[in-house]
Amino acid sequence: MERHFLGSPRLEHLVKLFSRFPGIGRKSATRMALHVLAASQDEAVELADSLKEVVSRVRACERCGAISEEASCELCRDPRRQAALLCVVEQPTDIFSLEKAAVFRGRYHVLGGLLSPLDGVEASDLRLGVLRKRVEEEGVKEVVLALPGSVEGEATSLYVARLLSDSGVATSRLATGIPVGGQLEYVDEVTLERAFSGRRPLD
Amino acid sequence: MERHFLGSPRLEHLVKLFSRFPGIGRKSATRMALHVLAASQDEAVELADSLKEVVSRVRACERCGAISEEASCELCRDPRRQAALLCVVEQPTDIFSLEKAAVFRGRYHVLGGLLSPLDGVEASDLRLGVLRKRVEEEGVKEVVLALPGSVEGEATSLYVARLLSDSGVATSRLATGIPVGGQLEYVDEVTLERAFSGRRPLD
Repeated sequence: MERHFLGSPRLEHLVKLFSRFPGIGRKSATRMALHVLAASQDEAVELADSLKEVVSRVRACERCGAISEEASCELCRDPRRQAALLCVVEQPTDIFSLEKAAVFRGRYHVLGGLLSPLDGVEASDLRLGVLRKRVEEEGVKEVVLALPGSVEGEATSLYVARLLSDSGVATSRLATGIPVGGQLEYVDEVTLERAFSGRRPLD
Repeated sequence: MERHFLGSPRLEHLVKLFSRFPGIGRKSATRMALHVLAASQDEAVELADSLKEVVSRVRACERCGAISEEASCELCRDPRRQAALLCVVEQPTDIFSLEKAAVFRGRYHVLGGLLSPLDGVEASDLRLGVLRKRVEEEGVKEVVLALPGSVEGEATSLYVARLLSDSGVATSRLATGIPVGGQLEYVDEVTLERAFSGRRPLD
């Protein structure tokens, strides 16, 4: 085993904890731990307090499943968001991307995963019951499925569409095709096929 | 200003604190904050406690300046380290690299910086008084200077050598030259010049 001398088991432990983060290797973790040591004591205490606050106070919105500090999130409480449009996403982080682009003015619904029988993820593991209830109670007219283009994403999109088929709501999904500015040579074959079959008349 | 929706000011604050670490941008900081949220509450508390422990319990060895949890560090307390050999380095992290390579069996002395009049770093800012005292009291026979090859590093090496010139101790510095396995075309000119002037007979 390689010997890592840091001169302090406590510092070594902090390096180990930082290494648990995604994308943080031993080198970056060591740099971070040394930064903690070099910075003021106040900074470390501020970070420690922030970590405890986040895990104790941040939770999921009971309605849409987004990240929130209240039972109902900022977006669900915002009266300017159109209740008639509901965008279904896999994870709360998908909302960040859509909100950053500012292209959607409706509300969101987080499924919390995708159907994947091989991984043991069944319909009952997703937030589908709440979705049906929301569609019935919130005057939703259209459900936009913004799930990934993977096999699991496709299967889940179809499942949700079928689930809502008798509720009178329209279902749609985001268009698949060539990204704006994308060059044909870098686009994969499945996307090209979708771009062809989904071609639209010029007018 | 770009809108960053995370749904929680507390989570946003944690992202800001993570972004302060060297090499951690907003994207990585967000990923880390979401990891905290996704992991167990225990993990976050463990990290918070570790941070507080490190800043309150880890300090510099009074003798050599290395990172330590005691007044005297692990290396200074180790009787197997040769007291006659003392290696002078700039920062505690330099000791990590040398210990990892396991090429030196003496003791260390951290200066805590390099002489740099332009940046306002003077001799009195470095741990030079302690160095002189150690050389006199610990039976040091040779001081090996392992400071960087920069202008400041060179100046500091010369300063230390002069400071110790009347103490009867030998001073040396690490060899400069072409790294093992290094190709000539990638070696800078100053290093090449040093490699020439420091050439040694084959035997």
